[in-house]
Amino acid sequence: MKAAVFYASDKPVMIEQVTLRDPGPGEVRVAIKAAGLCHSDLSVIDGTIPYPVPVVLGHEGAGVIDAVGVGVRSVKEGDPVIVSTLSHCGRCAKCDTGHPTECKNAPSPKDAKPFTVGGKAAFQFANASVFSEYTVVREQGVVLLDKRVPFDRAALIGCGVMTGFGAVVNRARLEPGSTMVVFGVGGIGLNCVQGGVLSGASKIIAVDVMGQKLEWAKRFGATHVVDASKDEPVAAVKELTGGGADYSFECVGNVAVITQALEAIGPGGTMVIVGVPKVGTKYDFVVHSLYQNKSILGCRYGAARPQRDFPMLADLYLSGRLKIDELITRHYALDDFDHALADLRAGHLARGVFSMDGKS
Amino acid sequence: MKAAVFYASDKPVMIEQVTLRDPGPGEVRVAIKAAGLCHSDLSVIDGTIPYPVPVVLGHEGAGVIDAVGVGVRSVKEGDPVIVSTLSHCGRCAKCDTGHPTECKNAPSPKDAKPFTVGGKAAFQFANASVFSEYTVVREQGVVLLDKRVPFDRAALIGCGVMTGFGAVVNRARLEPGSTMVVFGVGGIGLNCVQGGVLSGASKIIAVDVMGQKLEWAKRFGATHVVDASKDEPVAAVKELTGGGADYSFECVGNVAVITQALEAIGPGGTMVIVGVPKVGTKYDFVVHSLYQNKSILGCRYGAARPQRDFPMLADLYLSGRLKIDELITRHYALDDFDHALADLRAGHLARGVFSMDGKS
Repeated sequence: MKAAVFYASDKPVMIEQVTLRDPGPGEVRVAIKAAGLCHSDLSVIDGTIPYPVPVVLGHEGAGVIDAVGVGVRSVKEGDPVIVSTLSHCGRCAKCDTGHPTECKNAPSPKDAKPFTVGGKAAFQFANASVFSEYTVVREQGVVLLDKRVPFDRAALIGCGVMTGFGAVVNRARLEPGSTMVVFGVGGIGLNCVQGGVLSGASKIIAVDVMGQKLEWAKRFGATHVVDASKDEPVAAVKELTGGGADYSFECVGNVAVITQALEAIGPGGTMVIVGVPKVGTKYDFVVHSLYQNKSILGCRYGAARPQRDFPMLADLYLSGRLKIDELITRHYALDDFDHALADLRAGHLARGVFSMDGKS
Repeated sequence: MKAAVFYASDKPVMIEQVTLRDPGPGEVRVAIKAAGLCHSDLSVIDGTIPYPVPVVLGHEGAGVIDAVGVGVRSVKEGDPVIVSTLSHCGRCAKCDTGHPTECKNAPSPKDAKPFTVGGKAAFQFANASVFSEYTVVREQGVVLLDKRVPFDRAALIGCGVMTGFGAVVNRARLEPGSTMVVFGVGGIGLNCVQGGVLSGASKIIAVDVMGQKLEWAKRFGATHVVDASKDEPVAAVKELTGGGADYSFECVGNVAVITQALEAIGPGGTMVIVGVPKVGTKYDFVVHSLYQNKSILGCRYGAARPQRDFPMLADLYLSGRLKIDELITRHYALDDFDHALADLRAGHLARGVFSMDGKS
């Protein structure tokens, strides 16, 4: 079987033959049908997110259960599923209270090495490794998929849609009528925009430096766009909202943008950090700037509850209330990895999707 | 009439004769009966909170309506009241939605100059200036008081009790069963502790460097205390809570303590900054440390809704569910201002209260 293996930032990602162990107790093997290329994959390649190597990349995928290990009860061979990046225990206080992204017992994804490449064990990225024809994950790492959702659409639910939509709906819990601004409207930010649409935000302001992304944002429901390559975004947001937005979502992972996102909220406003800057990056702010009941929120994976949220997002898609078709800019074969990566780096993609059947 | 007037950090606060203008339309004059000495008064004196001078200090007081201006309808001469430090408009979106501390139209308290001292206009501190036999405030700046609450107790509701209790109840909205830690258990922190008690917190950990304050905290309902002069508080809190508290409240206004307060929360935890550091003070944190759905919240005046919260706090006091008697360490006459200030600086006071009738 074929997979995309990353060795080092100064070497190309290799599409090569790997072997995969059988699913153990409580695990399943998934035949991947489609997988989205997310900026976090690029962050691993660039060293922004350090990860042990060699590692099979990809963390946003969908496919079909190919085999189940002992004790697996929630899915069976032949079931279509979306892969989740969580490996929560389901048995701790955080899981019991509906916060699997805060699970205290989840094993580190950096410990898993289900693949072998060139005789050497290879790591699994983010409990997923979906840039591969097959992967082995824990039972709770797959979510049953409505057969009517095409795999390439379903794949995106597993990260980009969940992360952006969930930041608004699960984490910020934005109330109808609120105003919001999204800094960076790529694959994640566009889903913040549609999280705002679904939540009834009254104003949804998209900020980006790329005109193409602002056009996408309009299509996804932004009521206003600000081209930060031309206009000062904080002043623009304050003007549009009468003093500052109720919510801002930083989807870039850049300290200068986080600063803008905090300045763009008004009294009582909430800034959610969705983007992931390089490990160790510090952000500073004047303490007094939070005084009027402002908030800074971290956000992991859209505060996902995958078994509830993925089917809900699929339903919204099927009923025409959630745009996923429009998120897919291009399809690629896994062999075209370099091409897809170059398109992502150039900012040409809302999402690029690998079709594992080789069609591009 | 006599008042405490501050001129400069290198000069003593003067207890001297001042004159006060009559209440204008929508204003009331209050004969102050008691006023608490809060750390924010000291912060003005020390220059931590810059304020124009000369200024009549004091912002936590209670008394009797002495005269009302044209159009005042909610109070009348002779009514006992607590002074609020807000001067919200009551007519903006923030006021309409129950957030008077975020009011967009409130006049700056630094513009008010109702006093004259030595022929010169003197500023009013925090819409209050209650270290004075009389003050003039806007109608919304007073809240009717149950006659059964003594004025010295009532005074404390107006700032210390509201700010600490409200940080827990209004701002954090702590859920029953949560774990919490309070850094700094002086006049504000002790009221965070009792906000936690009233909210049903399962563990209430008090952290301070002064043994006396930790004793007070136990009396107010802390389930655990950590003497930070001896033990490392973050490690202690993690040990007591199995990995970090659900909520932490920083009541010191010190960046090193804010850092501890953030480190002391676990995944999904919330840190509320209640303390007020010197204007312009920056705080930095590693962005990734918020990733697991952690939050940093600013908090103004316990997110007070004075007309609802002050009577509620008075009721809790009258029914024995809120400790205020125990907050008062000493009474002073206004002429003993220096003495009271020295006791506050030395950390001897939960609260010192000025009795305006001259009894100490």
